[in-house]
Amino acid sequence: MKAALVSTKLHHLYRNLIWRSFSTKFAMANSKFEYVRNFETDDRCLPNTWIVVRVDGRGFHKFSEKHEFAKPNDKRSLDLMGKAAGRVMTEFKEICLAYGQSDEFSFVFKRDMDLHKRRASKLMTSVASIFTSAFVFHWPQFFDIPLKYPPSFDGRVVLYPSTQNLRDYLSWRQADCHINNLYNTAFWTLVLKGNLTNAEAEKRLCGTFANDKNEILFSEFGINYNNEPQLFRKGTVLVRDKKKKSEEELEGRLTKDILALNEDIIGDAFWNNHKILD
Amino acid sequence: MKAALVSTKLHHLYRNLIWRSFSTKFAMANSKFEYVRNFETDDRCLPNTWIVVRVDGRGFHKFSEKHEFAKPNDKRSLDLMGKAAGRVMTEFKEICLAYGQSDEFSFVFKRDMDLHKRRASKLMTSVASIFTSAFVFHWPQFFDIPLKYPPSFDGRVVLYPSTQNLRDYLSWRQADCHINNLYNTAFWTLVLKGNLTNAEAEKRLCGTFANDKNEILFSEFGINYNNEPQLFRKGTVLVRDKKKKSEEELEGRLTKDILALNEDIIGDAFWNNHKILD
Amino acid sequence: MKAALVSTKLHHLYRNLIWRSFSTKFAMANSKFEYVRNFETDDRCLPNTWIVVRVDGRGFHKFSEKHEFAKPNDKRSLDLMGKAAGRVMTEFKEICLAYGQSDEFSFVFKRDMDLHKRRASKLMTSVASIFTSAFVFHWPQFFDIPLKYPPSFDGRVVLYPSTQNLRDYLSWRQADCHINNLYNTAFWTLVLKGNLTNAEAEKRLCGTFANDKNEILFSEFGINYNNEPQLFRKGTVLVRDKKKKSEEELEGRLTKDILALNEDIIGDAFWNNHKILD
Amino acid sequence: MKAALVSTKLHHLYRNLIWRSFSTKFAMANSKFEYVRNFETDDRCLPNTWIVVRVDGRGFHKFSEKHEFAKPNDKRSLDLMGKAAGRVMTEFKEICLAYGQSDEFSFVFKRDMDLHKRRASKLMTSVASIFTSAFVFHWPQFFDIPLKYPPSFDGRVVLYPSTQNLRDYLSWRQADCHINNLYNTAFWTLVLKGNLTNAEAEKRLCGTFANDKNEILFSEFGINYNNEPQLFRKGTVLVRDKKKKSEEELEGRLTKDILALNEDIIGDAFWNNHKILD
Repeated sequence: MKAALVSTKLHHLYRNLIWRSFSTKFAMANSKFEYVRNFETDDRCLPNTWIVVRVDGRGFHKFSEKHEFAKPNDKRSLDLMGKAAGRVMTEFKEICLAYGQSDEFSFVFKRDMDLHKRRASKLMTSVASIFTSAFVFHWPQFFDIPLKYPPSFDGRVVLYPSTQNLRDYLSWRQADCHINNLYNTAFWTLVLKGNLTNAEAEKRLCGTFANDKNEILFSEFGINYNNEPQLFRKGTVLVRDKKKKSEEELEGRLTKDILALNEDIIGDAFWNNHKILD
Repeated sequence: MKAALVSTKLHHLYRNLIWRSFSTKFAMANSKFEYVRNFETDDRCLPNTWIVVRVDGRGFHKFSEKHEFAKPNDKRSLDLMGKAAGRVMTEFKEICLAYGQSDEFSFVFKRDMDLHKRRASKLMTSVASIFTSAFVFHWPQFFDIPLKYPPSFDGRVVLYPSTQNLRDYLSWRQADCHINNLYNTAFWTLVLKGNLTNAEAEKRLCGTFANDKNEILFSEFGINYNNEPQLFRKGTVLVRDKKKKSEEELEGRLTKDILALNEDIIGDAFWNNHKILD
Repeated sequence: MKAALVSTKLHHLYRNLIWRSFSTKFAMANSKFEYVRNFETDDRCLPNTWIVVRVDGRGFHKFSEKHEFAKPNDKRSLDLMGKAAGRVMTEFKEICLAYGQSDEFSFVFKRDMDLHKRRASKLMTSVASIFTSAFVFHWPQFFDIPLKYPPSFDGRVVLYPSTQNLRDYLSWRQADCHINNLYNTAFWTLVLKGNLTNAEAEKRLCGTFANDKNEILFSEFGINYNNEPQLFRKGTVLVRDKKKKSEEELEGRLTKDILALNEDIIGDAFWNNHKILD
Repeated sequence: MKAALVSTKLHHLYRNLIWRSFSTKFAMANSKFEYVRNFETDDRCLPNTWIVVRVDGRGFHKFSEKHEFAKPNDKRSLDLMGKAAGRVMTEFKEICLAYGQSDEFSFVFKRDMDLHKRRASKLMTSVASIFTSAFVFHWPQFFDIPLKYPPSFDGRVVLYPSTQNLRDYLSWRQADCHINNLYNTAFWTLVLKGNLTNAEAEKRLCGTFANDKNEILFSEFGINYNNEPQLFRKGTVLVRDKKKKSEEELEGRLTKDILALNEDIIGDAFWNNHKILD
């Protein structure tokens, strides 16, 4: 046997010993450390409740300024929000409806669904992440100006035991849309068309009711708030529609199966038309 | 008084009445619906515990294939992960350390911090969202191939009461990195250099210990696993370093204040050097 | 001025100084320590859900033996359980119904109630404590043998979003009562009348279905299980009945306002008679 | 074959059929209903934290009046509280220390214990129930007057990550004991010896500091607060002591293994003597 070979064999033996010790150390280490998994908590959502995940823009006031959003509403932004929400619905078939306005979007999971064992953490982080990802990914389709920095959205889970509770939640968000949008429309009209400073506009609107704001818009600027786009006044509701459609009918759809509507969801008409929560 | 004027006045009056009723309806509606806020739960993390948020790639097996990641490790992807994690640390000064490997990253919040009132939902969704956003935003800096679809990451919060528990958690993740990387290195070497099919490589490695895999790499392919890049074997740990640096020293840093290291964090040496958890 | 007086004055002054420092120390101490209150968590039950608190005897196998309970059922014990449950309902008007069998009792809180802000901890510990207290307090009214040691009951809270879920919960407990009681009746008949050992009786019943047990009781011992007392076969349901009653009608009632029934609560008849959950 | 026999056989057959259907119905019913178990939540306490269960008297102001407790402190009641707490410690060996004052008692579970899988519900309801049970059970040993109605205690769980947090919690309770007892001593001295009405006494003490109360006690009533019994001023701390004792030494002990002390637990001396939390 050649010396080199012997040397190699010894070398092998040596390496093997080292490694055996090393790998044993690691295997043991891993099982020694694994106890830390027990510190994770089980946060499954109560069964038979409507699970709502809402995402909200983080620091969107600054973000909208840096990216020169139109005031009081930027259609590009709202359409991009809708696009991102559509992506979430495409990934999670268990979502039966989504409603969005301003820099927020709510996703409603069917009450009997069992995705991710209904773990709240998994659901809210996945939704927030997919939404954010799609928002950044599709940005160039909606904006000419490039993204200056990565935007983000936080999320939360809320459970609603009854269908009435869920409808009241959605009504709350749409009433909020109305109230904010009327205020913003009046505010920015005073600033942009009335040449008031921000502070002056704020003061002017302080303590006014909805009808006062309406009156200002109408009598001073000839704006009939009711003629403002539904997109701004009602927000966007996404529903599934699996009926086969002609090419023509598909026009303007978010995806083949998802429809974006700008309708009232406070009254019963919408719910009678779309048997979503039954 | 001209008829037109009268008509206008009446019109105003009429609109006003409609609006008063409308806005009252909305104001009332909003306060009527607002009770749904009470369904939100308070999920503040126990004070004086280390808060770890870990994000994990969702469906990254498929994602890595679609985007032709190098096997067993894609340096571009790991660097992009580090970049995204750096962004999270830049937004949240309360994070004192982050550790990442493969398609996951863990963020450690200081135990006495009070950001977002320590609400678990807020913390985990914000981290998952910022991380995802930065991952998509910076993608073109690391990959020539464009993103085919928006990737996503889920997240979770785990609390560790003692510093030893926290160190064991981090050790667990790094031991996991070692074990997986050794397996993957052996597997892909057998496939790419040994011309085995995936199934054959899997069978070959089934039941082997770390030293066996090492031996295969060394004796059959002349690969000394210990010489593989630390990035692959140890993962990436991000720490803050606020000492002023010369231009030269800043070279290769993630940001001016954040340092990316590929060191052992299981032993004591790292922690003695960086007084992070004291 | 007399020396003694001076001394007393000095003494006062001295004491005062000591005390001022002492009390300041305590006041400061108290506010210094009070931060520990922040470690308490808010565990309010989701609104608009049925809250069920169930108490279960701890170590009641041993307890029933030490206190020579009749087998398979001890009427005294069941009546005492009912009495204790009545006490809980008397203290908590928000409980609309209670159901008990064996060594357990379930209490149903109205879904819209707001007692103790619906805090789960407060509700379950209070119910467990009142129940236990009344059980020990009323023991001598039901048993001649004195208590040998203090018995205890644990408790839990479960939420049910829909009325159907709640009824299914109650049905589950009553079906459990039936199954266990049939088994116990057969078991103890084999032991006490059939002179089998416990082990023999267990073996004999192993793998049998309800109808087999029934057949054993009927053909071997002439016992028609259906003629066994409803108390044993159905358990006890407590409901409120505020209609004014004659002295005669009040006979046998738990309290003036609470009625103990031994009826089927799985079918609809009971619920149609008592509009409790509407 | 005799008609009667045939009839009996048919009867059997008939009963059997009925029963088969009945029992099948029940077996199916039970498995049909069992899904309701999934509504129970997992509320395990974070590992490696000190678990404190505190019980508090419910409506003890009224209870103490109805049972003619001595004012400001009733030694019988405090001793009975200690006795009940001792019972809890006897049942749960995992409790290393208990501290009580007034109508409350706190129980400290060892941080590494795994009793009942650390489920918060189980722990707090069991402790509240055992405590209550023993309180009622041992009442006649401490009071001549019989119980007029069953008293009760609520309970809660609080987690403390560090030993310092736990000591601060216990200090908070003892500081609270001091502050309340000094107030009550002054108040009842003014009422019982100073012949003030409750309202007058309250007014007199309003806004006073500890040293003022002390001064009132000393200069007006000759009472040196420091000479009041430690039981009243310090509360009761229960610790285990397994050292073998002579009959003599056992005198006055709560149980063979449990020692009741009335010492300061805010300073370090107590903890240096008793290595309980190490």
